[in-house]
Amino acid sequence: MEDAQVSQLIGLTAADAAALIAKGEITSVMLVEACLTRIAERDETVLAWEHLDPDYALAQARMADDRRAQDTATGPLHGVPVGIKDIIDTRDYPTENGTPAHSGRQPGDDAALVNALKDAGAIILGKTVTTELAVFHPNRTRNPHNPEHTPGGSSSGSAAAVADRMVPLAVGTQTGGSVIRPASFCGVYGYKPTHGMISRTGVLMQAPPLDTVGVFGRSLEDVGLIADCLTAYDPRDTWMRPRSRTRLRDTAMQEPPVDPVFAFVKSPPWEEFAEDVTKEAFSELADALGDQCDEVDLPPVFDVGLNMQKLIQTADIAKFYGPILAKAPDAISKPLAERIEDGKSITAVDYNSALDICETLNAGLDEVFERYDAIITPASAGPAPKGIETTGSAIFNALWTYLGVPCVTLPLLEDGGLPFGVQLIGARHDDARLLRNANWLIQHLTDGEDED
Amino acid sequence: MEDAQVSQLIGLTAADAAALIAKGEITSVMLVEACLTRIAERDETVLAWEHLDPDYALAQARMADDRRAQDTATGPLHGVPVGIKDIIDTRDYPTENGTPAHSGRQPGDDAALVNALKDAGAIILGKTVTTELAVFHPNRTRNPHNPEHTPGGSSSGSAAAVADRMVPLAVGTQTGGSVIRPASFCGVYGYKPTHGMISRTGVLMQAPPLDTVGVFGRSLEDVGLIADCLTAYDPRDTWMRPRSRTRLRDTAMQEPPVDPVFAFVKSPPWEEFAEDVTKEAFSELADALGDQCDEVDLPPVFDVGLNMQKLIQTADIAKFYGPILAKAPDAISKPLAERIEDGKSITAVDYNSALDICETLNAGLDEVFERYDAIITPASAGPAPKGIETTGSAIFNALWTYLGVPCVTLPLLEDGGLPFGVQLIGARHDDARLLRNANWLIQHLTDGEDED
Repeated sequence: MEDAQVSQLIGLTAADAAALIAKGEITSVMLVEACLTRIAERDETVLAWEHLDPDYALAQARMADDRRAQDTATGPLHGVPVGIKDIIDTRDYPTENGTPAHSGRQPGDDAALVNALKDAGAIILGKTVTTELAVFHPNRTRNPHNPEHTPGGSSSGSAAAVADRMVPLAVGTQTGGSVIRPASFCGVYGYKPTHGMISRTGVLMQAPPLDTVGVFGRSLEDVGLIADCLTAYDPRDTWMRPRSRTRLRDTAMQEPPVDPVFAFVKSPPWEEFAEDVTKEAFSELADALGDQCDEVDLPPVFDVGLNMQKLIQTADIAKFYGPILAKAPDAISKPLAERIEDGKSITAVDYNSALDICETLNAGLDEVFERYDAIITPASAGPAPKGIETTGSAIFNALWTYLGVPCVTLPLLEDGGLPFGVQLIGARHDDARLLRNANWLIQHLTDGEDED
Repeated sequence: MEDAQVSQLIGLTAADAAALIAKGEITSVMLVEACLTRIAERDETVLAWEHLDPDYALAQARMADDRRAQDTATGPLHGVPVGIKDIIDTRDYPTENGTPAHSGRQPGDDAALVNALKDAGAIILGKTVTTELAVFHPNRTRNPHNPEHTPGGSSSGSAAAVADRMVPLAVGTQTGGSVIRPASFCGVYGYKPTHGMISRTGVLMQAPPLDTVGVFGRSLEDVGLIADCLTAYDPRDTWMRPRSRTRLRDTAMQEPPVDPVFAFVKSPPWEEFAEDVTKEAFSELADALGDQCDEVDLPPVFDVGLNMQKLIQTADIAKFYGPILAKAPDAISKPLAERIEDGKSITAVDYNSALDICETLNAGLDEVFERYDAIITPASAGPAPKGIETTGSAIFNALWTYLGVPCVTLPLLEDGGLPFGVQLIGARHDDARLLRNANWLIQHLTDGEDED
């Protein structure tokens, strides 16, 4: 395949690629070959992939092309490759959860969401690098915009692979800030749906009240497109409720009937943790939005949210990872081992109270959403920090994860060659309108740029 | 009203009373007057009622009779009085939760289940006595069969009032053994549905993974009849799931297509705690059932169930009652205060692990239910113990409460003038078949008696 063709194919959004495959203008094999070519060129630098089997990926693509040739009905992702974070079970690839304690682990079944992707016609391209057990301890992945910087975590490989055009779509998870932060650092769209919208059956459990499956793409339409394929009710995930099927992609692309008004919320850690470049960028953003944006202070009660998120996460890390530490103490990093030990002493009273407070805070947040269409707030403290010793802080994400609200980050900001995101937040289960308001914001700001 | 008429009216089952009211052969006012007459005669001895307002009860009855006279559509409990445990919120009566800490407490709203009873046409006759905060510390109620004995608890008043023919139906709750045990001791039918079948919105929370609303009646049909009125989905109770409406009463009255086979399970505490009279009675029962009953040992893993129930209950007692103790330390009994203190140190890891183990044990139980139609096991260690210093032990109930399975106790046994129950247990959500099998058992044993 010629370089120009590779370059064109790997630049396609998933929506465009799926449309071209459906029309027969490209094949899934062409697209997958282009992705594999890109990975072969770039993954020595980016290190986004944990398990990749080019022959198997191409075999899936050939099957997809054969089915299309036979006019078998195709799904919305027919022939489109997807990267899967390596804490999500796959029967066709190992799933090692980012820890030597699970080295060589081969699940017998696909996670429910992997099944859903296959139903939608997607090609499971491979497994992407995660931090240790999807907590903070970094892995090897680099930021594709500058390999001396972190890609963020824990969904490091998913964000980096999409950003580097190795794959148009990837799936990750967020327990603290593991979708929105790496998406921000890598300059892609990251979408964390309302907690309980995507099944976690077959996904490594870290903290069930927080664990949320999220997605990465290079357009807003794409994150809606893949999320729509993943929201079927799964009674095995007891945090899910049966709901009507989502129409995220279609709604996201619609014009809002009235221009949205945004609540610019600095969020509790703003003063101490937001970088100067972030403070400046959001000040300019608020100015650019004018009457469509008010600065809104959350009541002080929201300050406890970050602690509540940490309490639940730490207690559940002790529950779910304590047995791994007990069995393979040398395989667990020291910081994680310490966190596991910390979690063992958290009481049930405090844990269950933390769950209750989530409902109280959401009631408070609903009052904001009565007056505003979405919250606008940083996706990260700033661009990706230098070094890969940490994946950065989840401090601008953990409150929203705890609250279970939908979050989307838009790659609208840049500093020193590194992107960072604008995060929008909506009310629980109002995901489609959140994406529609996000699309309005992108259009509005892009129009503004054109006028300059 | 003449004594004979009172006697006839208070002896009616709820199903018969509802049918007679619907046909116009009796009125709700007559039935309620008869109940109030019985209460006036007997409650000095039995002490089953916490709040009773005869004028208000009669006013409700007159309204019910007026509506029937106007041919307004009536519900399945039209004009039938019901007693409500005093931990269930009522807007028309105080709800004091069995503690001086809540003396004079007047809810603004009815609990969801009270609304459901009103929708079904029931008369809320009054509130029945509960133990302290529905835990173990006894209240004043006496066993109607012998006032020197306990009626059991914590739904003491509900069980005693139904047994003493003060009211045909009553509602209670079970967190350890608070429906099945008092029903056993008082000689009535007690039915604890599958956990999550009846909304707990507006019911005092003690331990949400365990708290279950249950019902008391003087026939199996009656417990099905009232339970059918209470199973509507309530999204405010986050442990409920939307399901099709139950048909417990109709199914309970059907002949099983095949004679059921029972698994006689002695349950972990049998050897140490079952009284001799219980051991003899169940041996005879198993003999009487012949081929329709096998003795089945639960695997040893079930031995942990009692501890798991206690751990969850104790941790949640600390969470929900700790603030009451902190505010009104003198109002809380010493044993409950100690239990609250114990619960504060239970860890989140242990609590959440206890919840997980419930699913594992239910999977084990499902294997029993593949071979047997119901488990048959004691409802209590024996008949009601003498004295009212304790309400007896929940040791034959707590495992089943923890497992969330439906339980029904049948007043088939007697010793020294005191009744005690045979408990049947089914698989989660297979409540209707459990009641049908219970009805078969009653018919079978009654036929057997006729043949003697």
